[in-house]
Amino acid sequence: MITIKKEENEIDEKKIVNQIRALGIDMIDEAQSGHPGIVLGAAPIIYTVYAHHLRFDIEHPDWFNRDRFIMSAGHGSALLYSTLHMAGFNIEIEDLKKFRKLGSITPGHPEYLKTPGVDMTTGPLGQGIATAVGIAMGEAHLRSTFHKRRRELIDFYTYVLCGDGDLMEGISYEAASLAGTLKLNKLIVLYDSNQISLDGKTSLSFTENVGERFKAFGWNTIIVNDGEDISLIDKAIREAKTSDRPTLIEIKTTIGKFSKSENSNLVHGKPLERKDITGIKKKMGLRDIPFAVSSDTIEDFQRLIQNRNKNLYKNFEKTVSALKEDEKEALDFFLHHKGKIEISNFTYKYLDGKKEGLRESSHKTLNAIAKNTNCLFGGSADLFGACNNYLEKGGDFSASNYSGDNIYFGVREHAMGAILNGLALVGYRSYGSTFLSFSDYLKPAIRLAALMNLGVIYIFSHDSISVGEDGATHQPVEQLIGLRATPNLEVFRPADANEIIGSYKVILEEVEGPAAIILSRNKVNILENTKISEVPKGGYIVRGETLNLDGIIIATGEEVHLALEVADRLYSKGFDIRVVSMPNIERFLKMDDNYKEEILPVGIRKIVIEKASSYSWNKLVFNDKYILSVDEFGDSGSVDELDHKYGFDMETVEEKIENLLK
Amino acid sequence: MITIKKEENEIDEKKIVNQIRALGIDMIDEAQSGHPGIVLGAAPIIYTVYAHHLRFDIEHPDWFNRDRFIMSAGHGSALLYSTLHMAGFNIEIEDLKKFRKLGSITPGHPEYLKTPGVDMTTGPLGQGIATAVGIAMGEAHLRSTFHKRRRELIDFYTYVLCGDGDLMEGISYEAASLAGTLKLNKLIVLYDSNQISLDGKTSLSFTENVGERFKAFGWNTIIVNDGEDISLIDKAIREAKTSDRPTLIEIKTTIGKFSKSENSNLVHGKPLERKDITGIKKKMGLRDIPFAVSSDTIEDFQRLIQNRNKNLYKNFEKTVSALKEDEKEALDFFLHHKGKIEISNFTYKYLDGKKEGLRESSHKTLNAIAKNTNCLFGGSADLFGACNNYLEKGGDFSASNYSGDNIYFGVREHAMGAILNGLALVGYRSYGSTFLSFSDYLKPAIRLAALMNLGVIYIFSHDSISVGEDGATHQPVEQLIGLRATPNLEVFRPADANEIIGSYKVILEEVEGPAAIILSRNKVNILENTKISEVPKGGYIVRGETLNLDGIIIATGEEVHLALEVADRLYSKGFDIRVVSMPNIERFLKMDDNYKEEILPVGIRKIVIEKASSYSWNKLVFNDKYILSVDEFGDSGSVDELDHKYGFDMETVEEKIENLLK
Repeated sequence: MITIKKEENEIDEKKIVNQIRALGIDMIDEAQSGHPGIVLGAAPIIYTVYAHHLRFDIEHPDWFNRDRFIMSAGHGSALLYSTLHMAGFNIEIEDLKKFRKLGSITPGHPEYLKTPGVDMTTGPLGQGIATAVGIAMGEAHLRSTFHKRRRELIDFYTYVLCGDGDLMEGISYEAASLAGTLKLNKLIVLYDSNQISLDGKTSLSFTENVGERFKAFGWNTIIVNDGEDISLIDKAIREAKTSDRPTLIEIKTTIGKFSKSENSNLVHGKPLERKDITGIKKKMGLRDIPFAVSSDTIEDFQRLIQNRNKNLYKNFEKTVSALKEDEKEALDFFLHHKGKIEISNFTYKYLDGKKEGLRESSHKTLNAIAKNTNCLFGGSADLFGACNNYLEKGGDFSASNYSGDNIYFGVREHAMGAILNGLALVGYRSYGSTFLSFSDYLKPAIRLAALMNLGVIYIFSHDSISVGEDGATHQPVEQLIGLRATPNLEVFRPADANEIIGSYKVILEEVEGPAAIILSRNKVNILENTKISEVPKGGYIVRGETLNLDGIIIATGEEVHLALEVADRLYSKGFDIRVVSMPNIERFLKMDDNYKEEILPVGIRKIVIEKASSYSWNKLVFNDKYILSVDEFGDSGSVDELDHKYGFDMETVEEKIENLLK
Repeated sequence: MITIKKEENEIDEKKIVNQIRALGIDMIDEAQSGHPGIVLGAAPIIYTVYAHHLRFDIEHPDWFNRDRFIMSAGHGSALLYSTLHMAGFNIEIEDLKKFRKLGSITPGHPEYLKTPGVDMTTGPLGQGIATAVGIAMGEAHLRSTFHKRRRELIDFYTYVLCGDGDLMEGISYEAASLAGTLKLNKLIVLYDSNQISLDGKTSLSFTENVGERFKAFGWNTIIVNDGEDISLIDKAIREAKTSDRPTLIEIKTTIGKFSKSENSNLVHGKPLERKDITGIKKKMGLRDIPFAVSSDTIEDFQRLIQNRNKNLYKNFEKTVSALKEDEKEALDFFLHHKGKIEISNFTYKYLDGKKEGLRESSHKTLNAIAKNTNCLFGGSADLFGACNNYLEKGGDFSASNYSGDNIYFGVREHAMGAILNGLALVGYRSYGSTFLSFSDYLKPAIRLAALMNLGVIYIFSHDSISVGEDGATHQPVEQLIGLRATPNLEVFRPADANEIIGSYKVILEEVEGPAAIILSRNKVNILENTKISEVPKGGYIVRGETLNLDGIIIATGEEVHLALEVADRLYSKGFDIRVVSMPNIERFLKMDDNYKEEILPVGIRKIVIEKASSYSWNKLVFNDKYILSVDEFGDSGSVDELDHKYGFDMETVEEKIENLLK
């Protein structure tokens, strides 16, 4: 607690900024690894945000209605940590000394949930700013719909600190363009404009007029010509808050300020020389003692923050306690639902004996679930029609309707991925759709969802060569294994409506992190023996043998239907075959040995049918001969033509399996 | 050959345009699959380009110095094919009737090398325009450097037809921004601006001012307000050709023009109703007979083209024949080097007994090769310094120096991927670098390189948790298997300088298509038994057993060194172990059974060491227990700390392997 009294106008803000700088470069020096350039260059920016604008409660760093701060230039981690330490977050000098060391709370790039005050994991450039767009969208949606009668309840700003590199990345363009359309005026991007990147001057590759570009998107833009001038930065932020559009504040800074190599790429990505550090500290008027902090600067900084923020949390709690019981419950549920959205009480109308598109089954399931919860929020990258994930109840999310439930991301898969992360960071179970082939476009964002363990749901349809006429560009091959191999990402490829329901159920009720639902383009029957309740096991028997087990066919998705038909046909030829549906390989692999042995007994020949890379299956079936897969690119033609070409017509499959079991 | 004489001003151009439209919708109707909206909307644009601007020779569709036409909106394939047919390319009516059928030369989306006149494979949006930037860069480089004394030899324009979707994709932003910096004035983008995408009006998600955005990049921009007016489109293109900057021509069109659903998304992506087709043809003044073509329109169209282009090829050949012998040879080599760049005559200076970074070995190899060939052209996505692929001989490629050999892509991995494809389409062996973790950002472009079999080389460094301090975001896990599973992409993970040389050698001398070289961040010794000549086999013995083979360790990259040390240590404990280095799994898997049995005999225990997803290895080693891999995300810490945490310190590995072999 701060007790000393001093007038705010007596505070030496430059000194605080320099203290932040000094700590940051000390950390990098101690670690002998890190990025000093941004620490020295952008310290006045982050200082101004924390000292004069960011609303948070130091006692409750996870307070829901706090302003968010996203360090999109994740290599600026030392700058962020030193600021958080000075601001009073639970990060001690000892933690700063362990910067970039294993097990510390100060890892090389900011990591969500590892460090108090860190609002997301950053590092891969462009992701931060795009995710911030998602956070701002989530805030707008939540503000507008969750508590319609009490709009003041949810109400926070999202600040982003980004560099040239962030803005060169296509994902930042995609997200910023959408933010302009959506008029997300509570999004404020502080652009650390130093015109230097790792390889040198940005004039080599990046000469666009960034301000004009953002204006073209419908953003409010402000230029601060002197990044050392806190009052100018402060004024710009105040101005930004009054805008009816998102704001880009371009702040001209000097990378590596005070270093002998300032304003060059030499200072970007490696520790400074000892001598240079001495010189820098001298220029800043600070003692050359590593990790020395004057208590003045800490007290002054924290007092500024406290004076500004002291009643925020209390007032919020007051507002919450004045809520009606059902509103309170709804809020509470929204804040704590992770992996616990019960969906057992929903109704699904099966089509009687008729084929149903897997995308249609997914549509029905998603809509049925959405009736019972306000936690779902998502959309499509211009493929609502094809992926069938429009929420009928919801209306369209737009600048004039923030309570709309359906987001039109445009043809921007990558931004969609990051925005889904942002929505999940706000608390939504977010979902988005595109073709599986184009999951490649958003892979970097999927990886971040997995790293942060965010409850994002990807709906990827058109999942194999069975796309047909659109041809090889639209036919995934290697995508399934790429996703399955991604740590902490659950991948489901359901065979019919039952397994689709089962997949959504396990995702919403059990899985905290990200999950992908992979859907065929085609229509299939609902199977007799598929079971909602078996999906969590990853794999289970959908056709038992009659007497003596001659072999097992393992299949996923649409191919389960083929497997069952082939098994029937081979039965009449004397082969007694079991069929195992395996909507989620990784789940099956994690089951205990008894279960695995029960389903796939050792010593029995096993054959896999999946129209995708065989690499997914060698953990279950060693010999590629027993895997009917697609390991080359697809082609343009009808589904039948392609099945024939790639060996998935009934006759070929039957013959192949017969030969393998003989 | 056209013989009828008619004055050009007597030609009814509208009629030709409508004929193109009619054929296009007939194709889609016949296939009952396709995208009629763009056929009806953008026909006047493509017509104007082919009739009045595109320089090509119908007898020599692959003529090198032809103007390129990229249908970035690849779903407009029917429009492209019908135009190519009308223009006289070797595509018959019968081919049009087989649109989207297996084995036809008219696949669902345009495919490079499958159809005369198709300059690249498109479909995944944004790729076309970004690749076109690469083609224009290749043209500029080639024009400027390959024949310095005869600048007129290489001299072609690159035209792009793109839609709203292309421009929403981040990759188009990245590439266009770079094109502005590089002042690629021979790049002309025709933007089919109809404000409709698959899911509806673009006002839902795409309200930016596209023209202003491109102006901010330094482009010349022109608006054509009536997309039906050929003379306006023509005038705009003529104006574009005089610009000193790349040009975006925004052409306001009506999607599905003449359809009862014109100007709506209903007409975008599915066949028209029969009645609608009748109505459209009536409005266009054409007979309602499928695939009927008036010979007038064909003759008129082709005469326009021929009058304009008749001497181009001849003149080019004349210029070529006037070249000096060495110039002729150089040109000939450039045009036909695919997979045949001999690099045996280069010299590599090994460091005596000292450790060398794998990135440094790569740098030396690349530079040594570049001394002997002009076919290499590439750069880095702002990681020249870290990935070490700068060509010392070359200077920087820039607007004022098109003969520079080093491209600064900026932090734009995805555009880099597409631009590398464009350079390869021009004829270069192109290469680009970033961290392996960020290979995700360019995966969609890698896939297209693989689909088109383009000789692109990816240099991906920082290849595992051994990145160290930068942490999980920078430490790849699933990337290697994702790349290995990509059809037609060769993936090399060399262990030292010898294998690096071997990898480059096999890529340049044998591989026509794309290849990735995966490099560790760290320094290693050059090994005694690694061999340049063994790399093509994918895997080979680097440490033989002494007497009785007790087990085999398979490893790649940096881990080969660990494997050898462990084998030595275990030898003193009585285990006689062979070590196999496997820089390229897929190559090894394709070797004949004898060789595979020789290297990895059945019945001998095999253990894999690779700091990446185990999914890569189950084709060789079934049981995951025998695979020392990384199947979870990394962490921030020193390399030693991480090795210990993930079980790759010497002691742990030794103990594990000892237990496995006991």
